[in-house]
Amino acid sequence: MQLKSKLTGIESGGVFVVMLNSQDAAEMGIHPTDRVKISNNGREAVCIVDISKSWVNRGQVGVYKEVESGLMIKAGDSVSVSASGAPRSLEFITKKMNGARLNKQEMFAIVKDTVDRKLSDVELTAFVSSLHFNGMSMDETVALSAAMAETGKTLGIKGKMILDKHNIGGVPGDKTSMLVVPIIAAAGYKIPKTSSRAITSPAGTADRVECLCPVDLSIKEILNTVEKTNGCLAWGGAVDLAPADDMFIKVEYPLSIDPLLLPSVMSKKKAVGATHVVIDMPTGRGSKLKTIGAAHALAKDFIELGKNMDIIVNCVLTFGEQPIGYAVGPALEAREALYAISNMSTPPDLVEKVVNIAGALLDLAGEKNGKDLAYKLLKSGSAERKLRQIIDAQGGDPKIKPGDIPVGSHVAEIRSKTNGTIWWIANHDVVKIARAAGTPEDKGSGILLKKKIGDAVKGGQVIMEVYAENDRKLHDAIALVETLNPVGVYARPQDRMFIAKFPDGEEHKKFFVLER
Amino acid sequence: MQLKSKLTGIESGGVFVVMLNSQDAAEMGIHPTDRVKISNNGREAVCIVDISKSWVNRGQVGVYKEVESGLMIKAGDSVSVSASGAPRSLEFITKKMNGARLNKQEMFAIVKDTVDRKLSDVELTAFVSSLHFNGMSMDETVALSAAMAETGKTLGIKGKMILDKHNIGGVPGDKTSMLVVPIIAAAGYKIPKTSSRAITSPAGTADRVECLCPVDLSIKEILNTVEKTNGCLAWGGAVDLAPADDMFIKVEYPLSIDPLLLPSVMSKKKAVGATHVVIDMPTGRGSKLKTIGAAHALAKDFIELGKNMDIIVNCVLTFGEQPIGYAVGPALEAREALYAISNMSTPPDLVEKVVNIAGALLDLAGEKNGKDLAYKLLKSGSAERKLRQIIDAQGGDPKIKPGDIPVGSHVAEIRSKTNGTIWWIANHDVVKIARAAGTPEDKGSGILLKKKIGDAVKGGQVIMEVYAENDRKLHDAIALVETLNPVGVYARPQDRMFIAKFPDGEEHKKFFVLER
Repeated sequence: MQLKSKLTGIESGGVFVVMLNSQDAAEMGIHPTDRVKISNNGREAVCIVDISKSWVNRGQVGVYKEVESGLMIKAGDSVSVSASGAPRSLEFITKKMNGARLNKQEMFAIVKDTVDRKLSDVELTAFVSSLHFNGMSMDETVALSAAMAETGKTLGIKGKMILDKHNIGGVPGDKTSMLVVPIIAAAGYKIPKTSSRAITSPAGTADRVECLCPVDLSIKEILNTVEKTNGCLAWGGAVDLAPADDMFIKVEYPLSIDPLLLPSVMSKKKAVGATHVVIDMPTGRGSKLKTIGAAHALAKDFIELGKNMDIIVNCVLTFGEQPIGYAVGPALEAREALYAISNMSTPPDLVEKVVNIAGALLDLAGEKNGKDLAYKLLKSGSAERKLRQIIDAQGGDPKIKPGDIPVGSHVAEIRSKTNGTIWWIANHDVVKIARAAGTPEDKGSGILLKKKIGDAVKGGQVIMEVYAENDRKLHDAIALVETLNPVGVYARPQDRMFIAKFPDGEEHKKFFVLER
Repeated sequence: MQLKSKLTGIESGGVFVVMLNSQDAAEMGIHPTDRVKISNNGREAVCIVDISKSWVNRGQVGVYKEVESGLMIKAGDSVSVSASGAPRSLEFITKKMNGARLNKQEMFAIVKDTVDRKLSDVELTAFVSSLHFNGMSMDETVALSAAMAETGKTLGIKGKMILDKHNIGGVPGDKTSMLVVPIIAAAGYKIPKTSSRAITSPAGTADRVECLCPVDLSIKEILNTVEKTNGCLAWGGAVDLAPADDMFIKVEYPLSIDPLLLPSVMSKKKAVGATHVVIDMPTGRGSKLKTIGAAHALAKDFIELGKNMDIIVNCVLTFGEQPIGYAVGPALEAREALYAISNMSTPPDLVEKVVNIAGALLDLAGEKNGKDLAYKLLKSGSAERKLRQIIDAQGGDPKIKPGDIPVGSHVAEIRSKTNGTIWWIANHDVVKIARAAGTPEDKGSGILLKKKIGDAVKGGQVIMEVYAENDRKLHDAIALVETLNPVGVYARPQDRMFIAKFPDGEEHKKFFVLER
């Protein structure tokens, strides 16, 4: 059928969508979510059909932005529209829904069509749901991870050994990477670290580093930075590594499910070419992994998946029941990281965590006593010099001082109502308050803790400061502090970050469900 | 945040959707699929957020047609936009995804938000998938069915006994309702039958009846017709009975799953006020239920669900391995039904099926020998007179003759290549050929079988005729006949439609999966 195009001018979220008049669709025997092939001057695309009674008349086809650009269609162009079958991958999704296992080719077809935006939200949700309900075998997990890496870009860094780290997240204020990457690079190993921005947290590593230098690097800029300095601290979102992940997250996020945790992490590691990876697993009340047993189970899966992908993985469980260091929020955290790496101020839990993670990586790389080496590189100023080289290579000011980083000018002090000791700090509440104050968008906003778990306080003493960039948000955040009671005042400290390391140590067994 | 509205002019498929600029969204901490509350001059709605980088600028909000109409927004209006939580029902969907059972209030909340278009495709798919994966208890099925009925309109017909029938479908040419409804009405019982149009079949009952009289009746017109004649043959789509069903089908259709079969049927029966229902279950090769065991299992569920909804249900298994009668396609079938009810031509399988279904209904209503009574009402002309009354009441010509119904003028005869007996007629292939010929849109198109299973044929003898309204479609259909070989020619008949009846008869046990 030849139809005259009418342009919507609107994006359809990446997926190729066209809109048919209901009577034309009926004549062609086409229903909403069926596919049609659209041809214009030799260019073709298979599109998902939306149906309208009024916006397109009979004889018209409504064309969204993606199809307009992809097929170079102008308003009023006569384009050919014919029924087309569903993509093969839909059959494999149905197969997985019905409990069958998928082979490598089938997983690849699904991931490829996901990246090529050929699957509708309904179909993607069905796939992600089927992984949630039916689980994945290790073979499927390997196939999915490989497909996610292969359908995106790769860094292609030369060298036999590429180190990397990943934090499964959940604890606010975790600026560990900003210190670990310079330590590893200073030790002479390559560590091309890509990080994410915050989705639901107050700050991602990319948000923090952006207070020191640009993070929105091209692959070429990443390669240059690594070439010059051995490391980088770049935003992963700009470089299309394992792009299927973002499509899956779009579905997982509203449903609060996370069946793709393992492939999501490991496909990105494969794409950067990592050979040795340490996974940081914050564990405990208020973090994603509530128990050591849960962390063990996940660690085993990471290590096994790594083996199947030729990546050597070690996992480090860390204490996850309170924010890391004192600062929460992009600028406040960048400032704290810069103080710590310059040995001007050293929150003991942050330093303890950094040397454990960096130490585990150095051990993997073959060093005798990685933790001691990491500590030495930090204390000697080598790590600071390396961070400044990285800042310079990424286009920032290598002489930046902590005081140069602007933080919010609207500040409120939160005081303890009673005498006692801090017994707990609720991560989730800290996140909510920091977000109310404006994080991650308002870079200067956030929370500066004045006390941590185990610290003694007196009634009226300041336990935290809230920073915001305007009064309304400051007011919103203070109101939340009153409602949530984020800090429990009553006796004893927890500065030792290290709980256990894998594959060392005894194993706890327990089934677990990951929360987001 | 106050934003200036920019109208898309496009429907978003019923769901309330607005589009925010990516920077405004980031500032408000809002992600795609999050919700915002939109207020305009005292009118409010919670909308799902779509995000655009270019179509809306900072300070603008893109408004789809549904929101434009619902809140009476004009282009350039300043509307208030604020973050809003996800609907409560999303929590219940997550609960069901995690394997928990839902109570009545939780099911109701999900169905209500579905009907109110508050759930995104992702969320609806997650719900339907979770029913597919985790199944439903009888309590959940009852709650879901009741909620689907309660969130739509109801007929509210007076009278202690309201009869109804339903065919679970899958067999082409099934014009049984067109004869059963007049028989039941002629016996003096109320039967307010609502039917669907074809989605993937060559004709639905609404498509067939429309060749005799209007079917697009309002509730008032249905009530008038039933008042005058005891029966009606109306299209259910116009009257908003259990409207959640259409929303669920939108998700089930592309995934070829059907976890809502029972609630879908029974919620509609509840909405019309039925007290006694017969479910026709075509069974056998080429129909939805492959085995008697499968049909038994489904029949038991229907009967139990009925008990919990105060509806007395009987199920009748019928032979489903070939089309019913000879005609397939709206006009050809309407003509055949009119011939049969006028006793001018009586395909034996059609008559056998009609008197069995009508008989089962009359038995339920308390008659001594329902099947004999049904046969008498058919043969005496009472049923024909009743059908003509119904046609009249619905606004058609009560004097219509079979020859008055126009059928396609482009006709091809398909001949047997060999001598022998018809061993099988493949339902799926008949459907494909009829759809290629133009059904259900081209009402005059379709297939007229000249032979049925068990008939002897000679090489060169006509076994079927294909009807189309234009040459191109006739050509497409003929080409398909060649490819598909829909009729197997080799020895023995199957005119007896009746296999077994429930709750009578012995029980077969077997697990089954429904196909679509």
